[in-house]
Amino acid sequence: MLIVQKYGGSSVANAERIMNVARRITKTFNAGNQVVVVLSAQGDATDEMLAKANELNPGASKRELDMLLATGEQQSVALMAIALHKLGSPAISLNAIQAGIHASSKYGNARIKSIEPERSTAELERNNLVLVAGFQGVNRYGDLTTLGRGASDTTAVALSAVLGADYCEIYTDVDGVYTADPRSVKNAKKIDCISYDEMIELASLGARVLHNRSVEMAKRYRIKLVVRSSMSEAEGTLVNKEGSTVEKNHVSGLAVDLDVARISVMGVLDRPGMAYQIFSLLAKDKISVDIILQSIGRNNTKDISFTVTKADLRPALDILDANRELIGFDMVSYDDTICKLSVVGAGMASNPGVASMMFEALYDCGVNINMISTSEIKISVLIDAHAADLAANTVHDKFINNNIEIKGRQA
Amino acid sequence: MLIVQKYGGSSVANAERIMNVARRITKTFNAGNQVVVVLSAQGDATDEMLAKANELNPGASKRELDMLLATGEQQSVALMAIALHKLGSPAISLNAIQAGIHASSKYGNARIKSIEPERSTAELERNNLVLVAGFQGVNRYGDLTTLGRGASDTTAVALSAVLGADYCEIYTDVDGVYTADPRSVKNAKKIDCISYDEMIELASLGARVLHNRSVEMAKRYRIKLVVRSSMSEAEGTLVNKEGSTVEKNHVSGLAVDLDVARISVMGVLDRPGMAYQIFSLLAKDKISVDIILQSIGRNNTKDISFTVTKADLRPALDILDANRELIGFDMVSYDDTICKLSVVGAGMASNPGVASMMFEALYDCGVNINMISTSEIKISVLIDAHAADLAANTVHDKFINNNIEIKGRQA
Repeated sequence: MLIVQKYGGSSVANAERIMNVARRITKTFNAGNQVVVVLSAQGDATDEMLAKANELNPGASKRELDMLLATGEQQSVALMAIALHKLGSPAISLNAIQAGIHASSKYGNARIKSIEPERSTAELERNNLVLVAGFQGVNRYGDLTTLGRGASDTTAVALSAVLGADYCEIYTDVDGVYTADPRSVKNAKKIDCISYDEMIELASLGARVLHNRSVEMAKRYRIKLVVRSSMSEAEGTLVNKEGSTVEKNHVSGLAVDLDVARISVMGVLDRPGMAYQIFSLLAKDKISVDIILQSIGRNNTKDISFTVTKADLRPALDILDANRELIGFDMVSYDDTICKLSVVGAGMASNPGVASMMFEALYDCGVNINMISTSEIKISVLIDAHAADLAANTVHDKFINNNIEIKGRQA
Repeated sequence: MLIVQKYGGSSVANAERIMNVARRITKTFNAGNQVVVVLSAQGDATDEMLAKANELNPGASKRELDMLLATGEQQSVALMAIALHKLGSPAISLNAIQAGIHASSKYGNARIKSIEPERSTAELERNNLVLVAGFQGVNRYGDLTTLGRGASDTTAVALSAVLGADYCEIYTDVDGVYTADPRSVKNAKKIDCISYDEMIELASLGARVLHNRSVEMAKRYRIKLVVRSSMSEAEGTLVNKEGSTVEKNHVSGLAVDLDVARISVMGVLDRPGMAYQIFSLLAKDKISVDIILQSIGRNNTKDISFTVTKADLRPALDILDANRELIGFDMVSYDDTICKLSVVGAGMASNPGVASMMFEALYDCGVNINMISTSEIKISVLIDAHAADLAANTVHDKFINNNIEIKGRQA
């Protein structure tokens, strides 16, 4: 088999962990597999480089930051090759230029456009373990770009697609995908199998175990993704076309996203095109809006509320302020002490029982709901950030630990 | 003018020094020059990476070490670009792949073979300061190779040649080339002007201020080299076709090399081909031999003595031992507590006065001479390492501080 493995920064943070990963890679290789390994930068290496850059110039150019940060993964792959050689395993390290990972030119948040696999394939044919620097690509100018935080997952999935890997294994510091974050939800359980769509929702809702784009890409190319721990031999979670949870119509997981701020634009004239005007102004400045809620009009005005990331709160408020006359509104209010709690499960949101169970759970623990948003496979509510842990535990216990199947959707 | 500047690792060791260098570069740029800057890795960065590699595997492959170490210079150029942008100076950083620095495949000690200057030229035409990672090249496999310790000087000279620079300025932590190492010879003086040949001898004899190969390349392409301090505004030393010291027939400098070990092969049969046999065996294992001395034969045998670097002492002894029967000798002795003291000056060694003055100085301070070697522009003696400082100061004072011109060679 051809297996692509990806190890995160904490798995290669020091010599002991590097040797541990090297032994694991060697085991897979000695079992007769071809292995391609994607690595992140060591532990805090990226943060340390950012601090150095920030000391010199808080407004460092993204092109130069990418040039700087890309060295972190190059160091990881070189060190891992050195460790593998110590174990007698043949290995060669490649940076993004050598591995032919072509990306767009948007420094700091580029997308992989194509991969020329010739060098990797040639090294595999020479019976080498191929170690590829994650998180980076080369653009059409021959310059290094980085793919955004956590994007080494995406590098691994893209390589899996191009090389036709049988499995793409994402090694992390937890032993799989959980029904909720085990650090805050005490009864959280490991999921054995989950569908791409559910995983995409969980990832984008704040479950930090897999990079959002990597799951979307895995779905598109039907890559079998396995999430498992680099520290244990546990089986991990398989992300695949059909998850077992889908068939049972269970809620598959719960996620809490603390990086949320709510903005309400009050007293907007109730006529067509107002929402378009607000959100096109925000989009022009690359501000992503998540949940949008519009009140029912009264006195010929309405209120429009939406959520953004905390980093985008200030810029969004500035844009609204600068365009007050153009849009025409009474006032803007905001709240950055909230969080988004979501439950995810295939087909669940179309079932009224799920929403009411969630609201019941929140009522049980006395948590007030600020906004509600639903989609085909998730329900999200905005609640007070201080209530996040209490609400997550209560909702999780109600849905997942009681193993309640959703009414009327029995298989 | 087009000026290439090279700054060493100590000049970019921390944020304060990087900003200091950035100001200096900006000053040259704002004076209306095109500027290309070659940088080394920050301070101890290279040693720290080597320590990491060594912890994993003391026998790390050179290919992977080069992959690892090349990140040091890439970090330096990215950080410098970030600092220059802070000062409002346009700058772009390039690694060896981007700067088109093609090198041979001998990992760890590659040679620059050619430079494709297109990217650098294009960036200069866009009015950018171009920052190039020193010490590295890319070989025909697309892999990174390093050019040997101190070889960022060579990168700077090679770029000067290809781009047709008017000056190549080597910035270091001393303000020029000295007649001897100022740390051990108290009366050492800065040299204003020195010829290529004298500088080559001084560099290869242990004066660590310029990389040996860089001076050879500067001579070949007639690059005007300037050695000066990144910490002061002092004028520095000009290395050029004709040094003023040449015209005056002075001894231009003195160097002490502590990295020397002597091996003597005793009782070799006195017949043709014996020296060839010994040195071809050593050459096959890439052991460089410096001074060679052969005793006058007695009883149909002779002794052959030579010097190697300390790192090559053990391997050389092993080779001799393994080939004892082939070569045929009585015994081998060695001494690694010696050093090589050399005086350099154009045309001096052909003048008997210089050698005798040197021997007189050593006699004055009671230092015994172990071996003697002369060339057209230098005289080297092997002496006890403990006597290095005493001998260097005495010889230096005799030749250079007395400003004695060599007899019979007056201009």
